[in-house]
Amino acid sequence: MSNLDRIRTTQAREHLNRRVRMTGWLHRLRRLGSVNFLILRDGFGLFQAVIEDADELAKLRNALPESVIDVEGVVVAEAQAPGGLELHNCRVRVVTRVDEVVPFELNKRVLKAGLDVFLDHAPVGLRHPQKQATFRLFSGILAAFREHLASEGFTEIQTPKLVGTATEGGANVFPVNYFGKNAYLAQSPQLYKQIMVGVFERVFEVGPVFRAEPHSTTRHINQYTSLDAEMGFIEDHTDVMRVLAGVVRTVFEMLSRRYARDLDLLGVQVPAFDECIPAVRFRVAQQVLLDRFGEDCRDETDLSPNHERLLCQWAKKVHGSELLFVTHYPVSKRPFYTMPDPDDPDYTNSFDLLFRGTEIVTGGQRVHSYRQLLNHIERWALNPAEFAGYLEAFRYGMPPHGGFGMGAERLLQMIVGAGNLRETTLFPRDMKRLLP
Amino acid sequence: MSNLDRIRTTQAREHLNRRVRMTGWLHRLRRLGSVNFLILRDGFGLFQAVIEDADELAKLRNALPESVIDVEGVVVAEAQAPGGLELHNCRVRVVTRVDEVVPFELNKRVLKAGLDVFLDHAPVGLRHPQKQATFRLFSGILAAFREHLASEGFTEIQTPKLVGTATEGGANVFPVNYFGKNAYLAQSPQLYKQIMVGVFERVFEVGPVFRAEPHSTTRHINQYTSLDAEMGFIEDHTDVMRVLAGVVRTVFEMLSRRYARDLDLLGVQVPAFDECIPAVRFRVAQQVLLDRFGEDCRDETDLSPNHERLLCQWAKKVHGSELLFVTHYPVSKRPFYTMPDPDDPDYTNSFDLLFRGTEIVTGGQRVHSYRQLLNHIERWALNPAEFAGYLEAFRYGMPPHGGFGMGAERLLQMIVGAGNLRETTLFPRDMKRLLP
Repeated sequence: MSNLDRIRTTQAREHLNRRVRMTGWLHRLRRLGSVNFLILRDGFGLFQAVIEDADELAKLRNALPESVIDVEGVVVAEAQAPGGLELHNCRVRVVTRVDEVVPFELNKRVLKAGLDVFLDHAPVGLRHPQKQATFRLFSGILAAFREHLASEGFTEIQTPKLVGTATEGGANVFPVNYFGKNAYLAQSPQLYKQIMVGVFERVFEVGPVFRAEPHSTTRHINQYTSLDAEMGFIEDHTDVMRVLAGVVRTVFEMLSRRYARDLDLLGVQVPAFDECIPAVRFRVAQQVLLDRFGEDCRDETDLSPNHERLLCQWAKKVHGSELLFVTHYPVSKRPFYTMPDPDDPDYTNSFDLLFRGTEIVTGGQRVHSYRQLLNHIERWALNPAEFAGYLEAFRYGMPPHGGFGMGAERLLQMIVGAGNLRETTLFPRDMKRLLP
Repeated sequence: MSNLDRIRTTQAREHLNRRVRMTGWLHRLRRLGSVNFLILRDGFGLFQAVIEDADELAKLRNALPESVIDVEGVVVAEAQAPGGLELHNCRVRVVTRVDEVVPFELNKRVLKAGLDVFLDHAPVGLRHPQKQATFRLFSGILAAFREHLASEGFTEIQTPKLVGTATEGGANVFPVNYFGKNAYLAQSPQLYKQIMVGVFERVFEVGPVFRAEPHSTTRHINQYTSLDAEMGFIEDHTDVMRVLAGVVRTVFEMLSRRYARDLDLLGVQVPAFDECIPAVRFRVAQQVLLDRFGEDCRDETDLSPNHERLLCQWAKKVHGSELLFVTHYPVSKRPFYTMPDPDDPDYTNSFDLLFRGTEIVTGGQRVHSYRQLLNHIERWALNPAEFAGYLEAFRYGMPPHGGFGMGAERLLQMIVGAGNLRETTLFPRDMKRLLP
């Protein structure tokens, strides 16, 4: 082959009528006799090459789909071709020959594979263009989250995932043998991000969290990517909700702007969104469920998945919004560090954000007084000695603060409308699955 | 107090001669009688307020340093004040009163505390301005790494930290009880990022990795933040070195540009750097050590920390560079997936990047042929069944590829010239330390 520099499939238009070299995977080869259509896939897109020369075609004789190939040709405008361009006068070379048939057809528009089969073969299944698009959106969510918060004066932190005590005093932690000592995998960076409010006022973290929840649902998983933020010098939880609304808007805007092709490929849209997210108090939400849907859950201290779904229906209808804040959850359902509502102390300055039927964010104002925090730790029957480092931050002056945590894979699930969180998690971990 | 909007200490200049409100921590109060200087610290900087009114001063009577306070005053230009500005006609309010003395003086220019004492009290010690500066640089390193790679077409991924097999077949993994099954904490995203080259060609990940190394040195730690990248369609490892050089340049440039104040506060500089990093082969490096320093290590298969230090001295003197690539390490010292040098198969298409005396990056070209990889797994006495998912990616076509991994805390250590990696790690984890 010549030593032409390689171009990406997405750069072809800049090289119209010039000879170029592309490399990638043999996505599909349609042999029609004298004219043959080869679809090349690289990490960025697809491109059609026309192979007319029998010698060139012969080189592909034993190369099954997913073989890595190198194609040289002239970029030609062709109305019939996907994207209006194709390569002519091609020469091909097989770089890595594949001689086994892939477990499912990657070159069909929709990947036809059950979830378990797909996950068993994810290392190759993820190459399907719709899967590429899904996880490109994932990278966009992370980038938008960080970009927005950095622009608002937040500093990024990375905190320990190996901890000496279970973060929120709960069960559901994975134990680790740490040089003969007991350690746990962090369920959340909660206590560390609060400590860091004392340092930087405003911090965020993007990283894995681990939940040893021994149940298998379509919306739970045992490791996920948590998008966490925490901010000081607030009045109350509504300041946090305002920052969160800005984050969500930036995520949606950035996906629409930079990932339009991926959204198209998946046939999905992000909501039009003007940053004013309707908010309803927990007790009012219960009343709505009774009045509108005949669901009496006024004795309950949390919303069920079905109730979240119904409330989203209601918000869509009444407020025209795919997003809904539910605020002021009962004290009994929130962790010890949650700030009670000063006017109604059985309830809290907290919120969940629901989106398309499901809770995607949990947050609120935190207790910042050392004495009140000690008092809560006692009321929650926790051991203050296990929170010594955390408490030290409060002994030496913490401002009113609050924050939120959002599961990146869950948000992606709601954006692409996947039925199962495992479809939007790269190599998911659950009770059955530690591989690949 | 009034309901003036709060401004940050760093925004004062925009409000010259106007009344403003600042909130933060009482960093220092110098009582001189009729004039008293209060230094306020927020998450962004320090600011001096002059307190002349006895009633206002009285409000601070029992407020020790680190109390959270609210100060209102007029921004006035004053040549004597730090930064040339101060607040006059102040009114103060204590938001969170501190009545205990902090474990060390946060308001001295240099924090006087032994490392262990500092780490025991990190939740408050991290508030020291030099510590703030250090970890602001950390956030800058992460941002620069991502920004550079995103601009080069890399896609961000987040991979599992709970794995079914020890990544590189080594010991030194932390075992996790995973619902009664054996799992391990990932030592590196190596195998996953290679799999993902098959999907996106170019990927990066920023995340924690875990090494159960049972030794305590100044440059090892049991959890660190790994900056990983992997790229397909390369000629050999030199393509990876070129991308890495671009990353390093962007990191240094961005720190100089956006974090000049933090670098100043720490009295450190990033190297001037023109992207041409000298490179020397492993065996040539051994010869240099013999010829220049009388160190005969030609029988050894790796470089000792002292040898790395000497080579950096040499590179500085001979090449005027604080960075040095050492390439072509012996096969026996590199993991099974490393590509042998085709012209010299006892050595590999690999590299380390040394900076100011220490290795900060390891990388190289990987084996991409399925058969060669199977052969390596056998030669390294590993069990192919444990690598089934990884191998599947190779069975279905992988391009020539390579990548690198860089420890973010180690790079920061070298930039700020810290003697111990624990000084540049937020809440370090080592054999002794699981808290705070």
